[in-house]
This record gives sequence, structure tokens and C-alpha cells, in this order.
Amino acid sequence: MIEDKNQQRTPLSGFGEFGLIDHLTKNFKINQSSTIKGIGDDAAVLNFENKKIVITTDLLVEGVHFDLSYMPLKHLGYKAVVVNLSDVYAMNAKATQITVSIAVSNRFPVEALEDIYAGIETAAKIYDIDVIGGDTTSSTTGLLISITAIGEVEDEVYRNGAKPKDLLVVTGDLGAAFMGLQVLEREKEVYKVNPNSQPDLEPYTYIIERQLKPEARKDIIKLLKDLDVKPTSMIDISDGLSSEIIHLCKQSNVGCDLYEDKIPLDPQVISTCEEFNIDSTTVALNGGEDYELLFTISQSDFPKIQANPNFSVIGYMKEANEGMHLVTRADSKIPIKAQGWKNFND
Amino acid sequence: MIEDKNQQRTPLSGFGEFGLIDHLTKNFKINQSSTIKGIGDDAAVLNFENKKIVITTDLLVEGVHFDLSYMPLKHLGYKAVVVNLSDVYAMNAKATQITVSIAVSNRFPVEALEDIYAGIETAAKIYDIDVIGGDTTSSTTGLLISITAIGEVEDEVYRNGAKPKDLLVVTGDLGAAFMGLQVLEREKEVYKVNPNSQPDLEPYTYIIERQLKPEARKDIIKLLKDLDVKPTSMIDISDGLSSEIIHLCKQSNVGCDLYEDKIPLDPQVISTCEEFNIDSTTVALNGGEDYELLFTISQSDFPKIQANPNFSVIGYMKEANEGMHLVTRADSKIPIKAQGWKNFND
Repeated sequence: MIEDKNQQRTPLSGFGEFGLIDHLTKNFKINQSSTIKGIGDDAAVLNFENKKIVITTDLLVEGVHFDLSYMPLKHLGYKAVVVNLSDVYAMNAKATQITVSIAVSNRFPVEALEDIYAGIETAAKIYDIDVIGGDTTSSTTGLLISITAIGEVEDEVYRNGAKPKDLLVVTGDLGAAFMGLQVLEREKEVYKVNPNSQPDLEPYTYIIERQLKPEARKDIIKLLKDLDVKPTSMIDISDGLSSEIIHLCKQSNVGCDLYEDKIPLDPQVISTCEEFNIDSTTVALNGGEDYELLFTISQSDFPKIQANPNFSVIGYMKEANEGMHLVTRADSKIPIKAQGWKNFND
Repeated sequence: MIEDKNQQRTPLSGFGEFGLIDHLTKNFKINQSSTIKGIGDDAAVLNFENKKIVITTDLLVEGVHFDLSYMPLKHLGYKAVVVNLSDVYAMNAKATQITVSIAVSNRFPVEALEDIYAGIETAAKIYDIDVIGGDTTSSTTGLLISITAIGEVEDEVYRNGAKPKDLLVVTGDLGAAFMGLQVLEREKEVYKVNPNSQPDLEPYTYIIERQLKPEARKDIIKLLKDLDVKPTSMIDISDGLSSEIIHLCKQSNVGCDLYEDKIPLDPQVISTCEEFNIDSTTVALNGGEDYELLFTISQSDFPKIQANPNFSVIGYMKEANEGMHLVTRADSKIPIKAQGWKNFND
């Protein structure tokens, strides 16, 4: 929302495709021993010796997944990496490499791509992954980022291993990214009416950061290993808790009781929900973009995680024919329905 | 250019994201022993045991890389796979898996996506690869396909291994895809003026097929192995012969003499070039999209490939300080310059 009148604008047409990729990736370092050859040939070459690998890909589209009027480009680059790594961690794997493809219209100067790549580079450093390839091309409109993430895994965890009586556990807290988005959307509307208004975003710092610069739970994979806990099933929360619970239940052929009073909420989420007059449970269930991990463990593993503030036990798994329910604070049972983002709706 | 008034149009909004991916990929089979888990979890799981892997990614954008007014969607799906596999083969690797991400606007019905996936499925069958993941999302405009291809390799060939005195070899023939595009562009203009005109495309079948449904040279990788030839360097021809020669020379730190009279051209390319009054050598050098393999071999390997109609020796490598030149039919020497597609030009 803040316009910098002095920003430099170098047109993309000043670079050939190869010159541009070289320019954007020249600072990128290779740290993973599994990367034999990164950017610069027809393909990257990797050697995982006798480890299995995981691979996942995600597409972020301007106007659908992000709005550049409040998403700084550096944050966008960072977030694009993080949402992919989150899928790698959800397999109980270690993320090792990514490829990055960007389609961008000529309305963006080279400096815009530099900002996106700066965010990508920061994420690569923090999560210790190598950027090993990609493609940069023009688009007729808008900006689109496609990232593929690769990881190595010894003991992968699928969505389909949950058993009745397993405990349902979630990391961190939920609903913050969604409420951060509500605040940003509101400020955008205010800005349209009065471009000179100075928003006070201080009460929303945590939820806005969760929206603009989410983190993937690399730490949890290490923690689970240290605690000697192997989840029976796992998924990351990108579309919202209810949608992910349904995935785990359907693929594992189990049911679930989810306890409303156990869902972890940050105080900022609760106060902002009150301000916006939105039900915080609905936000936690359907908001999405939390990038927390949702997993099931055998009850015998409960003592290992019980005292750890990273984990909340929010429900337990039942027989499939018992269905999937939210047990409310008033002790009534409501069927869980997916209401995650439906990007194809008109 | 032919409109089917009776075609079925199911809106994309009729499916949730997950339902849509399930619907589009339900027929896809897993054939590769390295695929442990394909579509359906947070990530695919692969096991190459102790083989190295190669990975490459490409982005195809409507209005930049393809024009739907003459590119049938099935062909587009097929071509999107092939251009990625070509990069895998250019590493001397065996292609094994792909992920497919598609961004598409609501103006496309589900049947359009089904056509694209039908092309992808056909390519996957013919090249014996597994489709192991992907993402399908909406875009604000247009169609975009991002594919990542994975392969396994024992003895990879890079771009940087060419030595002075090595022979420069190309597979197949060059320039056909570019001339096919010229014919299609011309027909599009004719159609705009007179939608009832019936074009006679019979004289152009080969070059149009090379544009709309190119093939990657999987067969060459097997052939080279059978002939016991390991190229010293290799690249695939996507941007044009001159641009690829420059890549090999720069990365190998060598020079090159390319002989104009040795460049393989199909008779249809020659006759169409005459019709369009374009120089066929320029087309071969700068046309691109041939997806043939360009490689260098040690002179001692020459007898092994000499009699094989798949290969044309088109030049030989020199010391870097001797530069890169086209030796014309008139025996003059012209420096080789890259004039490949520059997608960022205004």
C-alpha cells in the first residue's frame, strides 16, 4: 500500500531468458550433499544414495492465491517456498532441494523478480535447501510461481495410517493466517477510500505475519524424532483443519471426534474474531493457510508429547462408521464438513 | 479452427479442487518400480535405490508458448510432457516420473482439462513414465502448464564436457517445427479473413506435426548405449541450434566450426522455406522447438555412429580462442550468434 516513487525499474526485456536466470540465481549456494549439479544444465542431478525421496509441487497464482496490493514480493517468494516445504515435512521427510518457475508479465521490472528471489533465497537459507533449477518466462498477465520441493526420507508417514483410538494432535495454533487476511483486506478497503489513512496494525502483528510470512514446521520433524514418536498418519494444514481431518479419516478409513475446547487459538485470533464478529472455531476449522502439522499417534505415545507446548491433543480417532464430528463446548456433536478454499467457484 | 457446437461444457466450479484432480487422474497407472506412492498424499514417494536422479522443470504459458487457436488441447498436453522429457534425455537419463500443475481460467470447461490430461496420459504411456503429482488451480486469465520431470541416471552427460577436436553431432532434422508454426500462423490469418476457407495442409503434414506433436528422443539414449557411445557433452535443441551450440561451447570452454552443408533438413522444410522466402539455414539455426539432441563425441567413436541415419555430424570442436563459426556453403566463416526465442522482448 506504500508506493516508493524512487524505485528503480529495469525492464525485463533488457535480459535474455538465460541472462535473467543467471542474474537472479547468481548468489544461490549449494549446501546439500545430495545435490550433484544444480542450475545450469538441461536438468539438475541429485544423489540420495539409498534414501527414498519425496516430491511435491504447488502453484501460486496472482489474484487467486495472493494479492500484491498487500503482499510484499519478498514475502511472496518466501511464502511460495514455505508452502511447498510444509508438504515435505508432512511426509516426515527432510526438505533438501527446490525448483522455482516464475511466469511474469512485462509490467514487472527486473527489480520485482529480484525481490521475489531474495525471499526465495532467505527461505532457502533458513530451511537449508538448495535451489537447483527452474524456468522464468513471460506471461500475458499477472504473476505465477510454481515450486517443486524435493526431500529425503527414511520413514515416511502417509495420510492413511490412522487407527481407531489414535489421538489427533496439532502443532502451534490455528486460524491466525485467515484472520490476518481479514485485517489486510479491511485495510485495503480503507486505503481505497482514504489513501492517507495511517492504519494501526500493532494489535494484529502476529496474525498478519502468519498470513504474509508463514513458517513450515521443520522443527517438528526433528522434535518428533528426538521424542521417538512416529505419527501413524500426518498432513499439513493448508486448506483448513476440517478439510485435513476429512483427508486423514477418509484415507485411513476411520472416524473422528474433534473437541472444540481443545483447538489451540492465539489470543490475537480470539480478540480479532470478536472485533470482526466471526466465530473463532469456524475460523480454525475452515480458515486454512496455517501450515501447521496435523497428525495421529498411538495412545501409547501420549506421555512423550504430553508436556510439550508445541502439541495440542484435539481429538481422537474412531471407527469409520461412527463418522467425523466436532464435539462443541456445549457437548453437542456436529458433523465435520470440508469448507476449505474452493478456487474454482465462480 | 473448427468449432464443435455440440461439445459438452461442464463448469470447473462443479468440482472441488480435490474432486477435480481425482477425476482427471483416475485412469493414470503406476508402472515404474521407483514410484512408491504417486498422487494422493502431501507428496509422492520415490525410491531410486542407489541410482542418481535428474530433475527438470518447464512452464508453458498461453499466448507466449502456445496459441489455442491452432493448438488442440490434447496435443498441448502431449507436447508439455515431451518438452520436459527431452531435457531428461539430454542428461543421458531415463525419464521415470512427472508432476503436472495446471492453472486455468473459468472460461475453460472440465472437458478442456480432460483433453489436456488425455494428451498427458498418452505421452505418459508412450514414454513409459508415471504421473505422480500436481496441482490444479484457477487463473485470472489463460492457461498455464508447469511440468517437472524426474529421471534416473547411471552415467549423466553434462553440457560442459566437450573437448577440442570432438565431433558435433545432431539427431533427426532441424527447422521443421518452426516452419510448421509459420504455416499455422498463416492459416490463422487466412481464417480470420475468410472462416469458410478450406486450407490444404497436405504439403505441410510433417512440419505441422513437428510443431503440434513433437517427440523427445528417448530412442537415442538407448541407441547410444547399444552403440557403446558416451557423448562428451549433450543438450537438447529447444531454443535453436545456434543457441545450443553456444551453450555447449561456453560451458565446455571450447570453440566450434559448424558446416552449413551438413545441417540436416527435411525436404518439406526446404520447400516451405522457398515458399515463404526464408533462408533454411537461418531457420535451422534459430527456429527452435526441434527437441532433437545435440552432442559431442570423441573422434574415436566416429565409426560407431557413421552409418547410422539417426545421426548427422555437423561440425567439430576447436580451442575456445578460435571462436564459434558457421562455415557456409561458399566456404566463408560467419560468427555464430544466439537468436533463440526471447520471450521477454516487448
